[in-house]
Amino acid sequence: MKRIAVFTSGGDAPGMNACIRAVVRGAVYHGIEVFGIRRGYSGMINGDIFQMSSHSVSNIVQRGGTILKSARSKEFMTPEGRAKAHEQLLKFGIEGLVAIGGNGTFTGATLFYDEYGIPTVGAPGTIDNDLYGTDHTIGFDTAVNTALEAIDKIRDTADSHDRIFFIEVMGRDSGYIAIQSGIAGGAELVMVPEVLTPISEVIETLKSGWSRQKSSSIIVIAEGEEEGNATEISEKIRAQVHSEVDMRVTTLGHIQRGGIPTAYDRILASRLGLGALEGLMNGEKNVMAGIVNNELVYTPFRDTIRLPKPISEDLLRMVKILSV
Amino acid sequence: MKRIAVFTSGGDAPGMNACIRAVVRGAVYHGIEVFGIRRGYSGMINGDIFQMSSHSVSNIVQRGGTILKSARSKEFMTPEGRAKAHEQLLKFGIEGLVAIGGNGTFTGATLFYDEYGIPTVGAPGTIDNDLYGTDHTIGFDTAVNTALEAIDKIRDTADSHDRIFFIEVMGRDSGYIAIQSGIAGGAELVMVPEVLTPISEVIETLKSGWSRQKSSSIIVIAEGEEEGNATEISEKIRAQVHSEVDMRVTTLGHIQRGGIPTAYDRILASRLGLGALEGLMNGEKNVMAGIVNNELVYTPFRDTIRLPKPISEDLLRMVKILSV
Amino acid sequence: MKRIAVFTSGGDAPGMNACIRAVVRGAVYHGIEVFGIRRGYSGMINGDIFQMSSHSVSNIVQRGGTILKSARSKEFMTPEGRAKAHEQLLKFGIEGLVAIGGNGTFTGATLFYDEYGIPTVGAPGTIDNDLYGTDHTIGFDTAVNTALEAIDKIRDTADSHDRIFFIEVMGRDSGYIAIQSGIAGGAELVMVPEVLTPISEVIETLKSGWSRQKSSSIIVIAEGEEEGNATEISEKIRAQVHSEVDMRVTTLGHIQRGGIPTAYDRILASRLGLGALEGLMNGEKNVMAGIVNNELVYTPFRDTIRLPKPISEDLLRMVKILSV
Amino acid sequence: MKRIAVFTSGGDAPGMNACIRAVVRGAVYHGIEVFGIRRGYSGMINGDIFQMSSHSVSNIVQRGGTILKSARSKEFMTPEGRAKAHEQLLKFGIEGLVAIGGNGTFTGATLFYDEYGIPTVGAPGTIDNDLYGTDHTIGFDTAVNTALEAIDKIRDTADSHDRIFFIEVMGRDSGYIAIQSGIAGGAELVMVPEVLTPISEVIETLKSGWSRQKSSSIIVIAEGEEEGNATEISEKIRAQVHSEVDMRVTTLGHIQRGGIPTAYDRILASRLGLGALEGLMNGEKNVMAGIVNNELVYTPFRDTIRLPKPISEDLLRMVKILSV
Repeated sequence: MKRIAVFTSGGDAPGMNACIRAVVRGAVYHGIEVFGIRRGYSGMINGDIFQMSSHSVSNIVQRGGTILKSARSKEFMTPEGRAKAHEQLLKFGIEGLVAIGGNGTFTGATLFYDEYGIPTVGAPGTIDNDLYGTDHTIGFDTAVNTALEAIDKIRDTADSHDRIFFIEVMGRDSGYIAIQSGIAGGAELVMVPEVLTPISEVIETLKSGWSRQKSSSIIVIAEGEEEGNATEISEKIRAQVHSEVDMRVTTLGHIQRGGIPTAYDRILASRLGLGALEGLMNGEKNVMAGIVNNELVYTPFRDTIRLPKPISEDLLRMVKILSV
Repeated sequence: MKRIAVFTSGGDAPGMNACIRAVVRGAVYHGIEVFGIRRGYSGMINGDIFQMSSHSVSNIVQRGGTILKSARSKEFMTPEGRAKAHEQLLKFGIEGLVAIGGNGTFTGATLFYDEYGIPTVGAPGTIDNDLYGTDHTIGFDTAVNTALEAIDKIRDTADSHDRIFFIEVMGRDSGYIAIQSGIAGGAELVMVPEVLTPISEVIETLKSGWSRQKSSSIIVIAEGEEEGNATEISEKIRAQVHSEVDMRVTTLGHIQRGGIPTAYDRILASRLGLGALEGLMNGEKNVMAGIVNNELVYTPFRDTIRLPKPISEDLLRMVKILSV
Repeated sequence: MKRIAVFTSGGDAPGMNACIRAVVRGAVYHGIEVFGIRRGYSGMINGDIFQMSSHSVSNIVQRGGTILKSARSKEFMTPEGRAKAHEQLLKFGIEGLVAIGGNGTFTGATLFYDEYGIPTVGAPGTIDNDLYGTDHTIGFDTAVNTALEAIDKIRDTADSHDRIFFIEVMGRDSGYIAIQSGIAGGAELVMVPEVLTPISEVIETLKSGWSRQKSSSIIVIAEGEEEGNATEISEKIRAQVHSEVDMRVTTLGHIQRGGIPTAYDRILASRLGLGALEGLMNGEKNVMAGIVNNELVYTPFRDTIRLPKPISEDLLRMVKILSV
Repeated sequence: MKRIAVFTSGGDAPGMNACIRAVVRGAVYHGIEVFGIRRGYSGMINGDIFQMSSHSVSNIVQRGGTILKSARSKEFMTPEGRAKAHEQLLKFGIEGLVAIGGNGTFTGATLFYDEYGIPTVGAPGTIDNDLYGTDHTIGFDTAVNTALEAIDKIRDTADSHDRIFFIEVMGRDSGYIAIQSGIAGGAELVMVPEVLTPISEVIETLKSGWSRQKSSSIIVIAEGEEEGNATEISEKIRAQVHSEVDMRVTTLGHIQRGGIPTAYDRILASRLGLGALEGLMNGEKNVMAGIVNNELVYTPFRDTIRLPKPISEDLLRMVKILSV
């Protein structure tokens, strides 16, 4: 393999730039030509492709977002779109791809390989940590710390006013951000999509706290919670408990996607970028590079797409014990 | 004056603890006995009052929230409530009060003085910076920096995805947080309650940016904006511009109230706490301590309550120039 | 076991409070009485021991340092000192100990068990990450992020002035903080005690950078580096390269020990605190609770004390590739 | 005036980029051509000059350091150097300059005007806040907050170990950073170059603290303190007090120069950049733009160079009261 390209796709995540840097510097180190594609599959179709050098990735390791930009492409989901993308890659002589993104990205790469034989190795870039095949995804640690900083700030107000706060964090299908930020933030309860927490249990927890003179409480809710979003849940509870209690809802929103990546995310992203590149050089295809138990592993896209990533029972148990 | 008490009231603000510390340490320094009242007027009525020493305020200068807690009290707005409060102060022998809060707090203090002759000197504690009689209120600088950090994070995503973000910050009647965080965050437009920004102007700004290849934009909106809140404004715009543009709304919410106070807020709070205490010792009453042009001044409560605090024309002009 | 005590010992580390909280709340959950000992073995000798409840550890999960304070005790290293300590524990009826600290602490605990049969389970609290038996120690992740923030700041100046900076980080016998903060900070070179980096190699790296128009460089040095400390190394280099290059040295020092713990450290500390407590309840003794490959394990003190914890070859290789 | 240039000179300071941005965007807004000069006077001599547009300063408002780089130039201090610089400016048709820097920079600009009639308006860019003619310099607020964060971290360790910490902050001739970070950080004592603090007073303060059971203390020392630097002072004290007390010294160093600018610094820098530009357009020369009592003022370079900027007596008094 003499010439490869790298791109980012799907929602941006802190650490994507550190990952791009590792792919580019790794390629330079190994004597391979490396190109960047802007805006994911959309740029691949439009030929928004440019050569990169070691210097192209100077001073980006600490930046959030992605210098290659990201976009979702409906066109790539059509055979015509992929044909155009293939033409562009041919034009630039690109023989292999490193894709930084999630399952949507990997699904596209699989179709593309089946049709045109251009191999892709993936790196897991998403704050949700919902990808099978790696202990952590790029951006997750930063997102958890961002959510945690917000929880720490809100607890100041909760304590000062004897309030209950319902804090909604990101995670449509996954409670990872909720459970980690909740434990670290000292939440009284964490509600995640993986496990049903009935409203009655929430009320019981609150009442038990009141009986022990706890005047304020933090409840962290993942956006994909089955009982509804934070506003709906707080209203259900308000309807069932006495009305003097001051309850507030806050949705953290998009701040969780951005920001300066943590040390953990920069190192993970560097390892996975280099791992994806070296995998591609060694003939891997249709696999995602991941770190499991501190070892680099390659997991087929069909497994990362198909297999669930269960949340730790231990962590769920810990929330209960620590809020005693 | 031999014995005074200090309390916090209204919404909590970062730096309130530094202010309490200055009142207490100042009292100790001047040989005056000092008491703390928990939960503002509500604790005054219930007698939740305790003696404080230099040690009571150790290691709090850096903490958000208020160790004295805060609450709004409907009872104090009744003559009966104030009578109970007066009885409690008599019981503890308290001759004067330092009240850290906003106009609601100062209105109560004025009534109380008229009826019982117990003097209060105020310190302006609110993140909104909407109090006449001081250049800045305690908590404002921290709130602006918190909003700014959020804007910095969101810009990562806006840039990576070529998106327009509408960011709603706090400020029901005041655009101070919006204008300062907007300028510092490089926003394309800032919408504040003090000045009407018609939707047509927003659209023009966006279009002018697109014509100059600006692919992402940040619009900061104060919650009290006349054209509606961030969601309503974004919907009005979406209805009028072509639909491919990706627009998102995010409401920063309660994170703006909490957090570790900045250096500026801790110093301001210390100056105002000491200034309020020494004013009280020198016979001031029904006034708020403030810093105007770097000098300590006392402004009558009737003026802080009545007079508006206009936003700087210069800053509004700057947003326009800097987003060229 | 009906009654246990917890203490912190050796250098303080961010996350120790989260660990104390998990021990205390875990004990309350399991119906065991729990005491705190202030200032480690020194407080054990002096009887500075007090009962703790769930409430004693409210609102500490986010605080750096240790509410139980820490100290080194020469007296406990004598048989007389340990006899006094034993007497005190008898007086309070304490049957087992959770010790949060490092190898010095664990050595003392082993002697104490041999003489008096009081079992101790340890939790690894040290920023250096130099303990065998756990992938990470409590405080390490926070220390790395603190060092990284400093490196990010210094790079601003290095870039603005075309300078070389030698940054000394903590780690007397261990290069863990250096290697992780160096990779994450985009350092051109990292010097660690585990591997000799000859001065000639440093000079070569700098020259190779200059030949590729790199105008600024960051070299991260662990304090235990064999070639000397940062100042000595910079002087050796200055003597051998042309004099126009602007070189500066900065020693990060004590800021690396303190600060608000990261999410990672709070969760790790919670797991290890609970793990140590439940180990003690289940009859473990003279072992340290650790997390290896995401599983809770107990390692005998004799192994944590004796066995080295090698630095990852992979990470050392990555520094070289990423600074291409 | 049709064509101007902007440059940064002297030590870098957070907010310089926001200032450059304001100069460039202001010029675009007013229809003036604007050039950037790299590495201050050194780049002026070498012709390292390039045209800038609104786009050149996108996404830099939040970055530390200076995109125009900075350097000290001995050559510009010679008539020959200035002659070369003048030739380059002629070549590019540059009629006026905005210089972001300190007194060294302004001295050069004055000489240059006397010889060649090219007017310069300055903006005060230095973390030390030691320039007459403005309440605050660009970078000062960020430096104070950086020093404060470090003090907050160190206090965790000081408290946990009952230690005295001597913390040296920047400020060769000025105690501004020391006094502000000291008050905000709750220091027991602050030592500044403007006022002699005899060692005997330091010892008295420490002893008085011990008598009130204060077990830890923070003493903040400006690097230009007359009694010596932090290490020397700590040794003088160690020689005079009993030896069990654990004393540590830490020098914050270069981290104080870098980092993401605070909201205050970004707004100040924007106002001063725009103020300097518009001053230049209106015929000002050999003056520095400053903000005094929230108003834009222009002060002649001869005054900013000659006149001292005294430290506030009020703040010095506050340290004493607050550490009671």
